[in-house]
Amino acid sequence: MSVLFRFENVLSENVGDKGLDYNLILKAAQENMQRCHLALLKKRQNKTLGFFDAPKNTQLCDKINTLVKKYKDKNIKNFVVIGIGGSSLGNITINDAINGKLYNEKKKNTPNIYFADNVDPEKLSDILEIINPSETLFNVITKSGSTAETMSNFMLFYNTLEKACPDKIKENIIITTDREKGNLKIIADKLGIDTFEVPDNIGGRFSVLTAVGLISAAFTGVDINALMKGAEDMEKKCSTDDIEKNPAYMAALIHYLFYIEKNVNINVLMPYSESLGSLSDWFRQLWAESLGKIDKNKKNVGITPAKSLGVIDQHSQVQLYIEGPYDKLITFIEVGKFRKNIVIPEVFSEVEGLSYLSGLSFGKLLTVEKKSTELALTEANRPNATLFVPEVNEYNLGQLFMFFEIMTAFAGELFEIDAFDQPGVESGKIATYAILGKKGFENEGVKIKKMLKNKKTREI
Amino acid sequence: MSVLFRFENVLSENVGDKGLDYNLILKAAQENMQRCHLALLKKRQNKTLGFFDAPKNTQLCDKINTLVKKYKDKNIKNFVVIGIGGSSLGNITINDAINGKLYNEKKKNTPNIYFADNVDPEKLSDILEIINPSETLFNVITKSGSTAETMSNFMLFYNTLEKACPDKIKENIIITTDREKGNLKIIADKLGIDTFEVPDNIGGRFSVLTAVGLISAAFTGVDINALMKGAEDMEKKCSTDDIEKNPAYMAALIHYLFYIEKNVNINVLMPYSESLGSLSDWFRQLWAESLGKIDKNKKNVGITPAKSLGVIDQHSQVQLYIEGPYDKLITFIEVGKFRKNIVIPEVFSEVEGLSYLSGLSFGKLLTVEKKSTELALTEANRPNATLFVPEVNEYNLGQLFMFFEIMTAFAGELFEIDAFDQPGVESGKIATYAILGKKGFENEGVKIKKMLKNKKTREI
Repeated sequence: MSVLFRFENVLSENVGDKGLDYNLILKAAQENMQRCHLALLKKRQNKTLGFFDAPKNTQLCDKINTLVKKYKDKNIKNFVVIGIGGSSLGNITINDAINGKLYNEKKKNTPNIYFADNVDPEKLSDILEIINPSETLFNVITKSGSTAETMSNFMLFYNTLEKACPDKIKENIIITTDREKGNLKIIADKLGIDTFEVPDNIGGRFSVLTAVGLISAAFTGVDINALMKGAEDMEKKCSTDDIEKNPAYMAALIHYLFYIEKNVNINVLMPYSESLGSLSDWFRQLWAESLGKIDKNKKNVGITPAKSLGVIDQHSQVQLYIEGPYDKLITFIEVGKFRKNIVIPEVFSEVEGLSYLSGLSFGKLLTVEKKSTELALTEANRPNATLFVPEVNEYNLGQLFMFFEIMTAFAGELFEIDAFDQPGVESGKIATYAILGKKGFENEGVKIKKMLKNKKTREI
Repeated sequence: MSVLFRFENVLSENVGDKGLDYNLILKAAQENMQRCHLALLKKRQNKTLGFFDAPKNTQLCDKINTLVKKYKDKNIKNFVVIGIGGSSLGNITINDAINGKLYNEKKKNTPNIYFADNVDPEKLSDILEIINPSETLFNVITKSGSTAETMSNFMLFYNTLEKACPDKIKENIIITTDREKGNLKIIADKLGIDTFEVPDNIGGRFSVLTAVGLISAAFTGVDINALMKGAEDMEKKCSTDDIEKNPAYMAALIHYLFYIEKNVNINVLMPYSESLGSLSDWFRQLWAESLGKIDKNKKNVGITPAKSLGVIDQHSQVQLYIEGPYDKLITFIEVGKFRKNIVIPEVFSEVEGLSYLSGLSFGKLLTVEKKSTELALTEANRPNATLFVPEVNEYNLGQLFMFFEIMTAFAGELFEIDAFDQPGVESGKIATYAILGKKGFENEGVKIKKMLKNKKTREI
């Protein structure tokens, strides 16, 4: 069963002049479709854009599944992902969605998982306190092989491993990086460790369905073949240039038109599912880093993604969504069936105000709350859409990943920007190198130190 | 040492015409200060606004600390907080900040903590799988005593406890609710359980420093007296009407002016500290629910809070912050000293591109990355401020809570709205009651069912 995109509540027939006319959407599609669709097709055909075809790599799945089997009897208790941004957000998303946020505390036959995705020493020392390196697999992931945070963390865990059990270095490290270049590749060659590849033509934030996201998933029991199959099926569904049959194109066009026509600059993603909470973090990177750009007219464009979680944020953000400015488009995720369901027991039957809850299932309650919030928003003329997910499982998560990737890529074409670079983060990286005295950045270092020295601080 | 608010990078002297003239700030303060400051003073004096004085309640701390001691030898392995919104976000914030996100997995003498803060059956069944009810304390928290999600969850855990160990019902349940009214109070009286009070004049989102937030904190080893002391000291600091000496007022005024003068509708809070990550969730509720309102001119106002985390979001959101629209004001949180620090070991010294990292401490790396991002944003004329926190500990967290509460309350006065109600969430609640057939909502139920039936769905 397919993930579905429902969008009647973004239309003026339901939210008045705060919404879009359906004819306007169709007209905009007609005007932009050929240009945008062909641009993506071309990038795909000349192999500069690889994410569309990533799910077809079943050989990679076989290789990873074989690797997992190889470690079956080796008493691996922990799996540490060393990566940041596109090299960890997808991994966290898969784990939370399929295994649950409380996975580490549950009884199971697969290893616990930890994410060394920041350089906060307090977090790192907590991980070190918990794991025993000799029973731990470390998967270091960086496409460039030079990401400062990831390499720092790898240096730390490598050192820990080397001290505790030098004979296990080759066995307990898995490296995912560029096929040919970068510091991490140099180290892998020196240590004699085979590496997994991050394909050249797949950017970090589009790489979840490559070795980047799949290895940790497979080691924690996730069916990576089903993940790939879901993505492949969604890719097929979204290959048509008929806007009325392509959910990813339709979603992209709607967000684009709300930004252009209605000054809507905030894109809220609000899953009604704890296990899909982290999907919003993965999506935040994909959307923000791809579309926050200077366009060809030198205009600063970009729609800010905002994370929200039902029902929790009904008690936090919905007041603002209902009464605040008309600056948001909200996309709910509604789950059809929960993997586990529980019925609210019939207790306190003497308390009148609670009897409507007794005998109700929690899944039903969650869904009714979603529908009620949708209704309240729509009544208040607040545009909203829904992604319907039949059940949270590997196949449907794969569909969601591909849906959002194609939606983001298509939005990039609509905005006429390059959705696949990130020039804006260079200046910060250079400043870090300069302050830390990295070779080759001496001049910037002098400049920055002078600047900081002359700056007047105001503080209270 | 005090938490400090630094704001030179919001000024036009540093970010050009994207910033504010300092004189404009002072002028706006002069025009608004008496009205706003006196309004808050009045509400405080006539006892309609209690959060200012909450930290002075050391008797409450004594009572809670005594309770914790009482349970010392009772083999309590788990502590479950049953609450949502203002009845859990503060608890999570305290736990993550003081104990760390990996607290449950570390060795310690205090109980593990779980948050039943949603009605997702998958999450609830994970909690049930992990805990043994006879070794678990359940703290159910709802001010009104009728919150549907909290009461549903309480019914579930009560039933579990009753089945597993009926003799422990009184011992293993702690109730925090209104002193006199509500369903939960009725149940407490019936069970003969003493309750902790949520004071009448402190709204849910301002209640972290009452029994709401303090009980779970104390049971997990947090020094709640230090938390209260920090808040009390910040309250003193922010009691002046001199804008140049009042960090909370200054921060509120700056956000207000950016919204009014510069159309900045997004407030990004970006701690460079894993342990302060959840503070952004607590702040999101406080800010959004207090300020997302219809003002006296019937205008929809509100600044959307956005969560961000350094350094992770440098690899996710900073591209958008640097090149996207000028619609954000970013507030960093910078930590002076980390409770644990680690040095990046000198390994792979033969790889030239890594030598600048060897010997550096992770704390230094994190701080340098923050300063570099600040520099890059400022160079790109992106307004930003910094909250400097000497160290993450109870005293300073207490300061942060009070800083944000006063900032939010003062912003409410600037906008001339009621920051202490939430009328916008009523319609969603009524729809839920109506769909579920709660007594008294039959008419709405008929209306809604008819509406849903006639609605045309568009889905792909």
